[in-house]
Amino acid sequence: MKKIAVFTSGGDSPGMNACIRAVVRTAIYKGLEVYGINRGYEGMIEGDIKRLYSHSVSNIVQRGGTILKSARSQEFRTPEGRKAAYDNLVKHGIDGIVAIGGDGTFTGAKIFFEEFGIPTVGCPGTIDNDIYGTDYTIGFDTAVNTALEAIDKIRDTAAAHDRIFFIEVMGRDAGFIAVESGIGGGAEFVMVPETKTDLDAVVKSLKNLRKTKTSCVIVVAEGDEEGNAEEVMAKVKTKIKDDSKEFKVTTLGHIQRGGNPTARDRVLASRCGMAAVEGLISGKVNCMAGIIHQEVVYTSFADCIGKTKPINEDQLKLLDILSI
Amino acid sequence: MKKIAVFTSGGDSPGMNACIRAVVRTAIYKGLEVYGINRGYEGMIEGDIKRLYSHSVSNIVQRGGTILKSARSQEFRTPEGRKAAYDNLVKHGIDGIVAIGGDGTFTGAKIFFEEFGIPTVGCPGTIDNDIYGTDYTIGFDTAVNTALEAIDKIRDTAAAHDRIFFIEVMGRDAGFIAVESGIGGGAEFVMVPETKTDLDAVVKSLKNLRKTKTSCVIVVAEGDEEGNAEEVMAKVKTKIKDDSKEFKVTTLGHIQRGGNPTARDRVLASRCGMAAVEGLISGKVNCMAGIIHQEVVYTSFADCIGKTKPINEDQLKLLDILSI
Amino acid sequence: MKKIAVFTSGGDSPGMNACIRAVVRTAIYKGLEVYGINRGYEGMIEGDIKRLYSHSVSNIVQRGGTILKSARSQEFRTPEGRKAAYDNLVKHGIDGIVAIGGDGTFTGAKIFFEEFGIPTVGCPGTIDNDIYGTDYTIGFDTAVNTALEAIDKIRDTAAAHDRIFFIEVMGRDAGFIAVESGIGGGAEFVMVPETKTDLDAVVKSLKNLRKTKTSCVIVVAEGDEEGNAEEVMAKVKTKIKDDSKEFKVTTLGHIQRGGNPTARDRVLASRCGMAAVEGLISGKVNCMAGIIHQEVVYTSFADCIGKTKPINEDQLKLLDILSI
Amino acid sequence: MKKIAVFTSGGDSPGMNACIRAVVRTAIYKGLEVYGINRGYEGMIEGDIKRLYSHSVSNIVQRGGTILKSARSQEFRTPEGRKAAYDNLVKHGIDGIVAIGGDGTFTGAKIFFEEFGIPTVGCPGTIDNDIYGTDYTIGFDTAVNTALEAIDKIRDTAAAHDRIFFIEVMGRDAGFIAVESGIGGGAEFVMVPETKTDLDAVVKSLKNLRKTKTSCVIVVAEGDEEGNAEEVMAKVKTKIKDDSKEFKVTTLGHIQRGGNPTARDRVLASRCGMAAVEGLISGKVNCMAGIIHQEVVYTSFADCIGKTKPINEDQLKLLDILSI
Repeated sequence: MKKIAVFTSGGDSPGMNACIRAVVRTAIYKGLEVYGINRGYEGMIEGDIKRLYSHSVSNIVQRGGTILKSARSQEFRTPEGRKAAYDNLVKHGIDGIVAIGGDGTFTGAKIFFEEFGIPTVGCPGTIDNDIYGTDYTIGFDTAVNTALEAIDKIRDTAAAHDRIFFIEVMGRDAGFIAVESGIGGGAEFVMVPETKTDLDAVVKSLKNLRKTKTSCVIVVAEGDEEGNAEEVMAKVKTKIKDDSKEFKVTTLGHIQRGGNPTARDRVLASRCGMAAVEGLISGKVNCMAGIIHQEVVYTSFADCIGKTKPINEDQLKLLDILSI
Repeated sequence: MKKIAVFTSGGDSPGMNACIRAVVRTAIYKGLEVYGINRGYEGMIEGDIKRLYSHSVSNIVQRGGTILKSARSQEFRTPEGRKAAYDNLVKHGIDGIVAIGGDGTFTGAKIFFEEFGIPTVGCPGTIDNDIYGTDYTIGFDTAVNTALEAIDKIRDTAAAHDRIFFIEVMGRDAGFIAVESGIGGGAEFVMVPETKTDLDAVVKSLKNLRKTKTSCVIVVAEGDEEGNAEEVMAKVKTKIKDDSKEFKVTTLGHIQRGGNPTARDRVLASRCGMAAVEGLISGKVNCMAGIIHQEVVYTSFADCIGKTKPINEDQLKLLDILSI
Repeated sequence: MKKIAVFTSGGDSPGMNACIRAVVRTAIYKGLEVYGINRGYEGMIEGDIKRLYSHSVSNIVQRGGTILKSARSQEFRTPEGRKAAYDNLVKHGIDGIVAIGGDGTFTGAKIFFEEFGIPTVGCPGTIDNDIYGTDYTIGFDTAVNTALEAIDKIRDTAAAHDRIFFIEVMGRDAGFIAVESGIGGGAEFVMVPETKTDLDAVVKSLKNLRKTKTSCVIVVAEGDEEGNAEEVMAKVKTKIKDDSKEFKVTTLGHIQRGGNPTARDRVLASRCGMAAVEGLISGKVNCMAGIIHQEVVYTSFADCIGKTKPINEDQLKLLDILSI
Repeated sequence: MKKIAVFTSGGDSPGMNACIRAVVRTAIYKGLEVYGINRGYEGMIEGDIKRLYSHSVSNIVQRGGTILKSARSQEFRTPEGRKAAYDNLVKHGIDGIVAIGGDGTFTGAKIFFEEFGIPTVGCPGTIDNDIYGTDYTIGFDTAVNTALEAIDKIRDTAAAHDRIFFIEVMGRDAGFIAVESGIGGGAEFVMVPETKTDLDAVVKSLKNLRKTKTSCVIVVAEGDEEGNAEEVMAKVKTKIKDDSKEFKVTTLGHIQRGGNPTARDRVLASRCGMAAVEGLISGKVNCMAGIIHQEVVYTSFADCIGKTKPINEDQLKLLDILSI
């Protein structure tokens, strides 16, 4: 292994820059040359590749977004696209890759490895935390804290006006952000795709609201099976038949993707980035470097993609108890 | 003047608590008894009134929302409602009122004063900044900074993905939040109700986008005459006829109302609160205490309601120049 | 078990309120009566004890500090003090205790349990993270993020002026805050009590500074064996003999103890609080409820106090590599 | 006027980058070429000058520090230094300068203009707010909010432990940061260089502390005539002769200089930057562009340096009343 490349792909997440920095500096420390590929697989196909140095990643550890930019590539799904990408890597003499991203990124990396055999290690970069093989993904902690700060702000106004707020957080397939921001924000209910949402229980509880508390915050993961926050609110409103209650919806949206990463995300990103380079050198490839129980663990791309990380049952139980 | 009451009414805004604290402590300092009315005119009608002490307002200067809660009252619009409110004030011996809120609050206060003659001074508590008689309203600075932090976060992800973002900020009738958060956030365009939005210019500019910059942030005040952010985006998308560009919409919503007030809002709220009590004592009533050019100014409720505060033309010009 | 009491003791930490809330609501959910003891052992001796209800802990999950206040008690170190405390518990019929705090708190709880046999479970509330039996302590994540945000700010000014900054973070006996904020903040060096600090290596590195980077951030745990930040800076300055370099010291101090807890701390605090009550009910007593590898673990007070939690070696290695 | 240069000098302040951006883009908009001088007068002497384009200042509006770096120059105080600086400007064909900084910067600019006649306009970039000719300086609002957030955090722990905190904020000659952060933070006392500090009144008040409140926050400007926070605390401790009270000191230090600028600072910086370029073009030179009463005002360097901006008396009165 002499020259490696690093790229970010899929939805960006806070901490990707810290991860790029760790990859670059670990590679240099280990005597490797390192290159950055812009805009993920798209840039690999176009040959948008440049040499990176230690100073190229100065002063980025604290920044959201990704200096290598990110994109989703249709062309990489075709054999022609992947061949073009491979040719560009060969042209630069690159013999190892670090791919920072989520499910889609790793699916591409797996096929690419199977077809062309270029050693690849992944780093789990996505705010959704829905990747098997790591306790947390890079960006999740920041996204949860961003959601939480928004919930804190909304509670101020909910309490001032005795209102019922439905707050939609990101999570098309997974409720991790919803559960942690819901517990942290003192939400009365959290609705996630992993569990059946009982709207009648919500309605019953809201009817009793005025007795002990007068405002209410309900966190809805965008992928809940009852719909997004707007839809869930409409259903609840129809069921409750009480015009005296004021319902409001806030969709947090893309603010959850940006912002300076938290300490936890910077440390996680740094450790994963270093582990990815060490994996490439020591031959642990076609896999992702994650952190489980505070130790580095390499999990095959096949498992990362194929297995599901369950939501913590203790936390769901906690939510029920703490909202009394 | 021996006993005064204070209440908050209309949409809540960060700094209302700092204002309540200033009213209470100035009143006590001046030898007055002071009462808090819960939920604005609604609580006045219901007699939801309690004595406040210096310690009642300890540790609230930094909190969003309002400890006195806020509401909009239909009943106060009727003569019967106002009579009931008046009777409750008489019952408690209250001979002066501080009303913290916006246009609607002052309209109610003006009628009430004309009917019953209870001396009233207002404090400008609203995030929208659309009140004549004060350079800034209490809560505006916090709302702008909240919007700005959200725009900063979204720029991270916009830049990472070369996307065009339409960000909707509050402002049904006024573009103050949009203009200041747009300048501060380095927005390429800002759309406000006060000026004609030229969608063709936006489209033309977006077509040239890839040459010098690849992402774009457009701030839309919710009350722009071309519609809200979702509607404006749809119009632009239709006009631009370019599928390669990715458009996204984020509506910041109620997070703009909450949160710990900024230094500027706490100082402004404290000064207005003190001035309101001094106004009551010195007979400057049926008016609002605002700060113009760093000095306390009392403006009649009639002017506060009837006159329009214009948007700063220099700032609009600035936006055009800085987005090149 | 019918009546339990909860208190906070030792240095306060962000998340203590979230923990109190979880204790109170879990207890009520399980059918227990719950009491709050003010100011730790001090209040137990004085009988400063009051009943807590579900609404007593509303709207505190997001607040720093502790609504039960905290103190260090000399009197509790005497048999007479502990006897007085015991009598007060008996008077209120309290048959179980949750003690939120650190080493000193658990030492007191252990003796108290041995003398009087009142079942006690601890929750790890301290920013220092130096408690055996839990991956993280309540408040640590917030303290690290507070330190990190300060480091980010200081990097701005360090970079603008080409300065060398020594930043002192809390940690009398442990370098956890220093290591995580150092990695996260991109520090060039981190000095901690657990490892020998090599000042000559620092000096050598600083001499080479101008070549690749022009500013430098060094994080010093207050308990480093070479001294606090001021002392370390003086030593380095003496050794380096180069007047062209500008050295600055910033001691972050008590800001690290306060502030709204992060999501991670709120969730951790909530889980520990619930687990403590469940421990009391199920007879797991004279121990602390912590979270190890995402699961609740009960560790005897003897082990919590007697065993040392080591610093993560991987992280120290990471620091060396990432600062090149 | 065809080519202008911009630099930052003296202590850096948040918003300097927003100001540089405004200068660059306004200049380009007006058809001028624009150059950046690194490290203030130091770089002018060394000829460290480079062309700036619109994209050179992309994505910096939100960043603390200064991309042009800052320095204090001894050499510029000598005629030889200034001659060397002038020669470099001539070499680049620069016929106008925007100088962003404080008192020292403007003193240098004034002499330089008198000697060599190169038109110069200043922008008020300093956190201290102690510049005559503008209501606020660039960076002041951010510094106040940073101090305020620190005070909020410290209040959490002060309240939890019933402690008396002396918090030192920046301000060698001026108490602006102390007064605004003190009002905003609900401080019991604020000590500033502009007014005589009455330590006996503080002691008297602290003796009565336990009756109505149990903790206390005192904000000390570093330049108070009674000394810095450590010294003031020592004096108070000696006078009060009460061992039961716990005194703590926190010196906020350099965190006040960094961080992302607030909305207010970004808007102010943008307006001043634009006004400076317009001043150069229209012949308003040897002066500073500030904002007074929301309008651009040009004040001669002589007045900026020679006249003193008084502290707002109303605010000092406010502090007395609100801390009861």
